[in-house]
Amino acid sequence: MTHTTEKWLEDIRWNEEGLIPAVVQDEKSGRLLMLAWMNRYALRLTAETGRAVYWSRSRHKLWNKGEQSGYFQFVKELRLDCDNDAVLLSVEQVGDIACHTGRRSCFFRKLEDGHWLTMDSPVRDPDEIYR
Amino acid sequence: MTHTTEKWLEDIRWNEEGLIPAVVQDEKSGRLLMLAWMNRYALRLTAETGRAVYWSRSRHKLWNKGEQSGYFQFVKELRLDCDNDAVLLSVEQVGDIACHTGRRSCFFRKLEDGHWLTMDSPVRDPDEIYR
Repeated sequence: MTHTTEKWLEDIRWNEEGLIPAVVQDEKSGRLLMLAWMNRYALRLTAETGRAVYWSRSRHKLWNKGEQSGYFQFVKELRLDCDNDAVLLSVEQVGDIACHTGRRSCFFRKLEDGHWLTMDSPVRDPDEIYR
Repeated sequence: MTHTTEKWLEDIRWNEEGLIPAVVQDEKSGRLLMLAWMNRYALRLTAETGRAVYWSRSRHKLWNKGEQSGYFQFVKELRLDCDNDAVLLSVEQVGDIACHTGRRSCFFRKLEDGHWLTMDSPVRDPDEIYR
């Protein structure tokens, strides 16, 4: 744990809840996998361990991505945007499944004729993943 | 303006401020361009006009992307995530410049040895763009 060089964490403009949105992209395919949230500790752990750690806003706790499913995300690159209020993770997605529905990406619905149309099928049944 | 078929807008889980984060990706290169925010009206206008419209949180008004710079974004696809609280825009980025700093992408800094290192140079001087 590096406690001395935390300038990079100070640069971040956290929101009122102390969070920043993290956009997650597959480093190989370029596919957008998900958008999650991080607090300061999650971002630090992510950088230090090389595994994606988020803040679960629904469960109000740290979320070690893959802890239940085994579908970890190995972080290859971490980027910050021009306003210091969004980060981008390029990841190696273990199992090629990022979504809790068993799909590759959380963005599996597309707007078509005024409806959100499901485009992609699950790679694996979520009941098999979370049991 | 289609006032009848707004079910797709009702599906969205807006945050306390009535906003949703919009992740913007170049449809051709797959490059992550920016993360912006939309309110209900911005999202509706985006879908209806095929041009990206955001909500500027700093200026507290609608932001017709490209209105000053000319670097519009033509939206080719609009996707929603599994939690209904993030959208993904695949866009054709006019001028290949999405960032107000004159760069292709807003995510031009990379974490390296505890510092945010600038990786990409501006394609064009922002003073030339906004004058």
